Amino acid sequence: MKMSLGKMIYEGKAKKVYQWTEDKNKVFLEFKDSLTAFNAQKKGSFENKGSINRDIAVLIFQYLKSKGIPSHFIERIEDRGMLVQQVEIIPFEVVVRNWLAGSTAKKLGIPEGKVLKKPLVEFYLKNDELADPFVSEDQMLMLELTTPSEITRLKELALQINQQLIQLFDQMNLTLVDFKVEFGKNHQGEILLADEITPDCCRLWDKTTQEKFDKDRFRRDLGSVKESYTEVLNRMKKIVGGQS
Amino acid sequence: MKMSLGKMIYEGKAKKVYQWTEDKNKVFLEFKDSLTAFNAQKKGSFENKGSINRDIAVLIFQYLKSKGIPSHFIERIEDRGMLVQQVEIIPFEVVVRNWLAGSTAKKLGIPEGKVLKKPLVEFYLKNDELADPFVSEDQMLMLELTTPSEITRLKELALQINQQLIQLFDQMNLTLVDFKVEFGKNHQGEILLADEITPDCCRLWDKTTQEKFDKDRFRRDLGSVKESYTEVLNRMKKIVGGQS
Repeated sequence: MKMSLGKMIYEGKAKKVYQWTEDKNKVFLEFKDSLTAFNAQKKGSFENKGSINRDIAVLIFQYLKSKGIPSHFIERIEDRGMLVQQVEIIPFEVVVRNWLAGSTAKKLGIPEGKVLKKPLVEFYLKNDELADPFVSEDQMLMLELTTPSEITRLKELALQINQQLIQLFDQMNLTLVDFKVEFGKNHQGEILLADEITPDCCRLWDKTTQEKFDKDRFRRDLGSVKESYTEVLNRMKKIVGGQS
Repeated sequence: MKMSLGKMIYEGKAKKVYQWTEDKNKVFLEFKDSLTAFNAQKKGSFENKGSINRDIAVLIFQYLKSKGIPSHFIERIEDRGMLVQQVEIIPFEVVVRNWLAGSTAKKLGIPEGKVLKKPLVEFYLKNDELADPFVSEDQMLMLELTTPSEITRLKELALQINQQLIQLFDQMNLTLVDFKVEFGKNHQGEILLADEITPDCCRLWDKTTQEKFDKDRFRRDLGSVKESYTEVLNRMKKIVGGQS
């Protein structure tokens, strides 16, 4: 397998992307041990973080596939890799909130932990230089980076993913407070869940203790970052099994 | 008339609001000489500003009324007053942009002056403490401060006002770059244009020289603030007449 690894195309904050020489419609993702927050102003890492997050992402993509959610995931590759469909990323981060926390809670002056009557979908323009600004649907259309029907599809998929993940995390005794996903279009123009779903881009609070099991442990210097990510993986394996 | 003036109910940044003793469904607005920017962190004033802005607001409300746009305006009262319908303000500032400028241009990294293919409507939560954060329609609904049909009506009215004002300012050789309006509900539940439309809440650029004739002269220390506001009033009087 490794012989198909081509040159690196792109290095992001948490992953490297490589060409896959035997098929130009596939790329290889390597999960890094680094951890960043606040638009990469805060940097850190822990041993095996890449491998742990890769395992979590694989289990989530497999689980979502079993529930009919299309994603770029193809297969898990040792030791911190994942083969995925090559997609063109739709340049908006899609956030789904079940409970209010983070930037939106702060912006609206609402205490963290307010339970929403229904999930809230938000869009942020993917642009590091501009610090990923929050945008309305009308602004997304004004930018001419998407279409009304694409926005409808993104919201629909995001809410379907949310419903499935709520149930998965519930079985792990975790509340899915919110999460961020990205979508891409493959060479056939199909919209697929892309990037990753890991504790780097979810808020997961223990249902019993309210303890945080996500990147807020790093963002807010709460300690035990590695232990928390490992615990998420261990709880997940008990529910959805998978390779280890 | 003045004998109907009751006690002050509220003092805002640019206006005072008084009860109108002979009719509880009416209130009296007094336009102040003060000028504020950046959520009142920058303060200033000029002589007759209240009277000039009141005159501009009156002419605009009268013009919009003749075009079928419902507003709270009842009548002009000397020397810096206006009698209006008592309304409950819908707590969102509605911004319409024809050209990009100000906060949205900055947020999206687009140079000021980009002409939009169609007008962009934006909503900002009215909350001084939170510095009037930009909100999406889904966030507005989550806050339970409005309804889907009310949002539809606000956008419809804002775009109608925009179409009429573009034509008015065009005759004054001014480009209506953007403007902010507020709406309120009267005691019958009717949604009315409220607050004011003046150079305090519009961007007006001379069509020939691109010179600014609005609060950006104050915000950005461009000088000739009073002269610019006076010029807007004088050009407007030539087009729509009115008392002086």
